[in-house]
Amino acid sequence: MDNSVGIVQAQHANFDQPLTCLSSGVLPRYDLAYETYGSLNADKSNAILICHALSGNHHVAGTYADDPKNVGWWDNMVGPGKPVDTNRFFVLGLNNLGGCHGTTGPSSIDPRSGQPYGSNFPMMTVEDWVESQARLADRLGIKQFAAVMGGSLGGMQAMQWAITYPERVRHVLAIASAPCLTTENIAFNDVARNAILTDPDFHGGDFYQHGVVPTRGLRLARMLGHITYLSDDAMAGKFGRGLRSGKYKFGYDIEFEVESYLRYQGDKFASYFDANTYLLMTKALDYFDPARHTEHNLAHAFAPIQAGFLVVSFSSDWRFSPDRSREIVKALLHNRCNISYAEIQSRHGHDSFLMQDEQYFAVMRNYLDNIAREVSR
Amino acid sequence: MDNSVGIVQAQHANFDQPLTCLSSGVLPRYDLAYETYGSLNADKSNAILICHALSGNHHVAGTYADDPKNVGWWDNMVGPGKPVDTNRFFVLGLNNLGGCHGTTGPSSIDPRSGQPYGSNFPMMTVEDWVESQARLADRLGIKQFAAVMGGSLGGMQAMQWAITYPERVRHVLAIASAPCLTTENIAFNDVARNAILTDPDFHGGDFYQHGVVPTRGLRLARMLGHITYLSDDAMAGKFGRGLRSGKYKFGYDIEFEVESYLRYQGDKFASYFDANTYLLMTKALDYFDPARHTEHNLAHAFAPIQAGFLVVSFSSDWRFSPDRSREIVKALLHNRCNISYAEIQSRHGHDSFLMQDEQYFAVMRNYLDNIAREVSR
Repeated sequence: MDNSVGIVQAQHANFDQPLTCLSSGVLPRYDLAYETYGSLNADKSNAILICHALSGNHHVAGTYADDPKNVGWWDNMVGPGKPVDTNRFFVLGLNNLGGCHGTTGPSSIDPRSGQPYGSNFPMMTVEDWVESQARLADRLGIKQFAAVMGGSLGGMQAMQWAITYPERVRHVLAIASAPCLTTENIAFNDVARNAILTDPDFHGGDFYQHGVVPTRGLRLARMLGHITYLSDDAMAGKFGRGLRSGKYKFGYDIEFEVESYLRYQGDKFASYFDANTYLLMTKALDYFDPARHTEHNLAHAFAPIQAGFLVVSFSSDWRFSPDRSREIVKALLHNRCNISYAEIQSRHGHDSFLMQDEQYFAVMRNYLDNIAREVSR
Repeated sequence: MDNSVGIVQAQHANFDQPLTCLSSGVLPRYDLAYETYGSLNADKSNAILICHALSGNHHVAGTYADDPKNVGWWDNMVGPGKPVDTNRFFVLGLNNLGGCHGTTGPSSIDPRSGQPYGSNFPMMTVEDWVESQARLADRLGIKQFAAVMGGSLGGMQAMQWAITYPERVRHVLAIASAPCLTTENIAFNDVARNAILTDPDFHGGDFYQHGVVPTRGLRLARMLGHITYLSDDAMAGKFGRGLRSGKYKFGYDIEFEVESYLRYQGDKFASYFDANTYLLMTKALDYFDPARHTEHNLAHAFAPIQAGFLVVSFSSDWRFSPDRSREIVKALLHNRCNISYAEIQSRHGHDSFLMQDEQYFAVMRNYLDNIAREVSR
């Protein structure tokens, strides 16, 4: 592929300085797995940080030499000539703390006990991630990002960057995001968590020592997640009431096509994702609420922000609906921020932010081209 | 309560004639638990059949002498002077086959084995229920119902009555119902079922002999159900992002008020409902699709219908949305049926059909008053 970043390699940065989390939990030391694409320019002004969502990681674009089918999760967005143009930007993606793809997480060994952290891994928040990302930026010599961007939970991190480090972020791209979860979002997360927490193989989070994995719970959590990532329309269009064998079989095996899809997605996810990581990520989503410090006034919470913003929402996204993006826009406007907003007509639900939609990509490309023009070569 | 039917008693009808189900499964004999309120008139023309939804039963109105807090599930709708006026109508409610409240179901003893049916209980469909309900009507000497009515899955049974026995139903009241489930509905049901099916205490449906109950799975299924019965707005209004202890506790115990509500509802349900019944009921929902026999043409499927129809939907019901009710209305209009339709503005989601909303009750009362006028005293 001539517009791919090509073969990439994960890197690891080790931090010996303890991280005290918002929960008061302490990580004595930790590793961050990350990837970079493109070249940092002389004054280090062309760096873009890409933050991942619930199940993402540092493998944003390209493939691995020993695993050519493992394409990065935002490969359609990031590469030479793509909206996030690696000919012009130095792109950084990392696996967040608590993750299960090379960054220190619940399945890593706790140096204090010699056992996996498991239930002892501190609860993570978006604020903690921003802190750990800032340390990685320091390590790479990046004083200010040209942009911090992400979809969903990734967009929340980008917003938090602009609040915590106003002088370190020139632009935020918050895609399919929200200023906090709705009650219904939290409720879905709670069902997903309870599926894992009540799986007899979970062992209070310390299943590693028991040689088992709570696959049943993780599978259910992912099945449920998939329903909420798609729109009703998209599911109807993709599967309808189609039957696997053309007729009712009157049993509990797969009958409808949509059941086949969900179970396949659930099984696949449960085979590689860490249950504790899933729990942590959903909790970080629940906790994100910058307005909780400002008597629920989001405009006041956004007061420190200096960055320019691109906010993008998708019409069929019922999990992070356009209404929620408009709340962000309104609070930014109150602070006289530089703000662009696009609501994309799309039937793919929350998953739209990962899809290659023409209008969506044109908006992204246009905004990022303007950023590139601000940056010296 | 002067407008309550007061103290009621469940009755049981035993049927020795085997029932061959749509699935080809056979029930050699069965009991139906039912309740009646009001008096059957001389020509037996004032009977109304009320069909229950997923977790309902025959206890539609009133209370029990030995359990005065156990109020029927539609007590606000049924009673003297209420929309379904028991001073004028003879009201019949029953627990559907496969149920767990006195009617023969998976936890009943299979006379062929002397063990609970468990996994051997035949799969149920709306068509099978209508057949068993017709036999009960025969037993009570009711040749024709003044109305068959119900909400959600109950509305599906009422529609099926009008298709299977056009001459036995004068009116159908289909509330918050649909001509079939959407793909998304089936997907949610599949997650709920998988929670039960993969619970190690389920034992393939034969948990009775193991002295255990798959409470974890049933609890998850009910938690998920509750999210889909409410609207996003209703949940936000009721719980918001309220915290049980006023602050984040950074753990997996209950933090948000909505988590407390869901877990309470899940625990309560799992303590009394039968897991196999839950599975059967969700499958009956998935299977209902009268247009499957008419090349997906609902108007053709409705061709036999002679009954007048009242169709009611609720604006915030995203599980059985007004769009789905309009499909019913359109197909009935095509057949030149007598049809009234009301879309009620309500923020309670699918649960609206159980709530006492002024406009909703006025529509119901008006339609039922007209039916009462057709009926001789």
